[in-house]
Amino acid sequence: MNDSTGPLLPDWQVSQWFNVRAAPQLADLRGRVVLIHAFQMLCPGCVAHGLPLAAKVHEAFAPQDVAVVGLHCVFEHHDAMPPHALAAFIHEYRLRFAIGVDRPSADGPIPHTMARWELQGTPSTLVLDRSGHVRLHHFGALDELRLGALIGQLLAQAPGVQATAGDAAGSAGCADGACEATG
Amino acid sequence: MNDSTGPLLPDWQVSQWFNVRAAPQLADLRGRVVLIHAFQMLCPGCVAHGLPLAAKVHEAFAPQDVAVVGLHCVFEHHDAMPPHALAAFIHEYRLRFAIGVDRPSADGPIPHTMARWELQGTPSTLVLDRSGHVRLHHFGALDELRLGALIGQLLAQAPGVQATAGDAAGSAGCADGACEATG
Amino acid sequence: MNDSTGPLLPDWQVSQWFNVRAAPQLADLRGRVVLIHAFQMLCPGCVAHGLPLAAKVHEAFAPQDVAVVGLHCVFEHHDAMPPHALAAFIHEYRLRFAIGVDRPSADGPIPHTMARWELQGTPSTLVLDRSGHVRLHHFGALDELRLGALIGQLLAQAPGVQATAGDAAGSAGCADGACEATG
Amino acid sequence: MNDSTGPLLPDWQVSQWFNVRAAPQLADLRGRVVLIHAFQMLCPGCVAHGLPLAAKVHEAFAPQDVAVVGLHCVFEHHDAMPPHALAAFIHEYRLRFAIGVDRPSADGPIPHTMARWELQGTPSTLVLDRSGHVRLHHFGALDELRLGALIGQLLAQAPGVQATAGDAAGSAGCADGACEATG
Repeated sequence: MNDSTGPLLPDWQVSQWFNVRAAPQLADLRGRVVLIHAFQMLCPGCVAHGLPLAAKVHEAFAPQDVAVVGLHCVFEHHDAMPPHALAAFIHEYRLRFAIGVDRPSADGPIPHTMARWELQGTPSTLVLDRSGHVRLHHFGALDELRLGALIGQLLAQAPGVQATAGDAAGSAGCADGACEATG
Repeated sequence: MNDSTGPLLPDWQVSQWFNVRAAPQLADLRGRVVLIHAFQMLCPGCVAHGLPLAAKVHEAFAPQDVAVVGLHCVFEHHDAMPPHALAAFIHEYRLRFAIGVDRPSADGPIPHTMARWELQGTPSTLVLDRSGHVRLHHFGALDELRLGALIGQLLAQAPGVQATAGDAAGSAGCADGACEATG
Repeated sequence: MNDSTGPLLPDWQVSQWFNVRAAPQLADLRGRVVLIHAFQMLCPGCVAHGLPLAAKVHEAFAPQDVAVVGLHCVFEHHDAMPPHALAAFIHEYRLRFAIGVDRPSADGPIPHTMARWELQGTPSTLVLDRSGHVRLHHFGALDELRLGALIGQLLAQAPGVQATAGDAAGSAGCADGACEATG
Repeated sequence: MNDSTGPLLPDWQVSQWFNVRAAPQLADLRGRVVLIHAFQMLCPGCVAHGLPLAAKVHEAFAPQDVAVVGLHCVFEHHDAMPPHALAAFIHEYRLRFAIGVDRPSADGPIPHTMARWELQGTPSTLVLDRSGHVRLHHFGALDELRLGALIGQLLAQAPGVQATAGDAAGSAGCADGACEATG
């Protein structure tokens, strides 16, 4: 019997971390709601909307309740966005949450995690429930009210309790017309 | 034994309704999350922030999940805001949710429901859980992300299940530094 | 010989003034650039955009350089917007510039000045040069940069000097694609 | 006798240009109003406010009337903002106006033009009249209405006519409380 509402997400592959003491694994965050924001430092929509909203989530919730992780998924202009440039970007934009560099691929422009998670581009946002299942997998701008509602709903669920199909998340939706059904 | 997190709200006293077929009672909404927005049509903060957010909540959630009710609490400039002026305002601002006129008092400028609920002014927002208990009683502007989180959390609770003190709502907070603890 | 770029505006017909000591006539403002903002207190576009921009112009320029006048042109919901309601509105929105009530007509819903000036609706904005000629007659939202450019250009002209056709105002335009050629 | 309101600006020193066919000199722009926006691609205030406003000016006025020039003045995080990264930034943000790279100095972090013009930091904006004299030298965010008014006023002046002290620019000011007197 399986009542999960989305797949378990395979772990990220990160070549370098910022704002953390030790490299986190996805499994370390089990028990918390997790918001992962995939961005590029030269992506206008990420800078204007995605990163400020991720930072706001990071500030609004206690870290033991909601973990916010940024993932720098460089798939274009690779020479313009090396890790030391990202470090300057993080400093200037005063980003405080954990940010990892998605490991570049030797085979093409798409980095490893971005390919594995089948992200369409940046900004992309994933939200995982306390059990690690994907509950939102969204490409583009997110609606703040609906993102808040999803996080609030997932916070209310005990780690061991899987949501059932047709629950409140379904009716609330998650983003402006584009929230993908997962699982 | 009582594990509720806020008082049951006494019913409103409304002299006239807009956007409804039959006059609703608070008890009719038991089982849903309820957002009540107390406003005045000539209150700048209500027009700029409160009413657009109430309208957004009304649009984002299914009516059987979240009920949005506006309450026109005129406590100043009474001659400038009679019900027929409110009707024009509702028409021009295209407000679609239920709006009631808080019954004027013969004893002073504060209308009946506003006095009974001890509202400080407008805009004020109350959020009730599915059991009718007050979970947010806020005067001033609300943060959209945190309001979403509260609604999402309350949606996740079954009507018969009372939240316990110290649950996620407590850690998430509800509004920019000003979210009142109720009950 | 006539090198004006727009007609002289016939005077307004105002039944009541707010924020002034004596009822102004258009002729009194000759020598200054004049911005006239026609609005209705229950017009959402006026409240959100037009009136804040008029207030900003009023604050940004010295009164002997730029005169800002509001004109309350009620052409719908007449019962909802009587002068005493406008007084409450002006108080609540803290409007400081001169505001006149366009004189109601006995023949129909359109008040006198609105009809005479052939305004399409609210918000409408007219800008007059120092000689009293109409240089902008716009219905809808205005672009702040372009409005600033028009005012700056008109300020630079001596009162006795009429602008010539094909001057800078022509190339700068005045509003988002909708700036009407006048005269 | 000297009736100019600001100094003639010494020319820029640019190591590389984008969006131009031939390297422009300041003298080439004599006769037009010139807006120079000094920025860094990783400066949040430049990305959020300064560059969008410069792009808006570029779009609102005819190029023979107003020339808009960006100057990339890298004075920190030099390794993160090399010219090839700027090229990616210009591409992603769809900037269309001329942008030059301020020539790095061998003696310190401040590039040549930034030092010569005594810019305090980024974003900085300079506005020159048709005669090449500095009429605005501002560090920080600019008010759109007041910038528009300054440009409009300068457009109205013939190239050979110098503005006199105490003219309209003085009364209008140029930016929120911080507009520097020049010359």
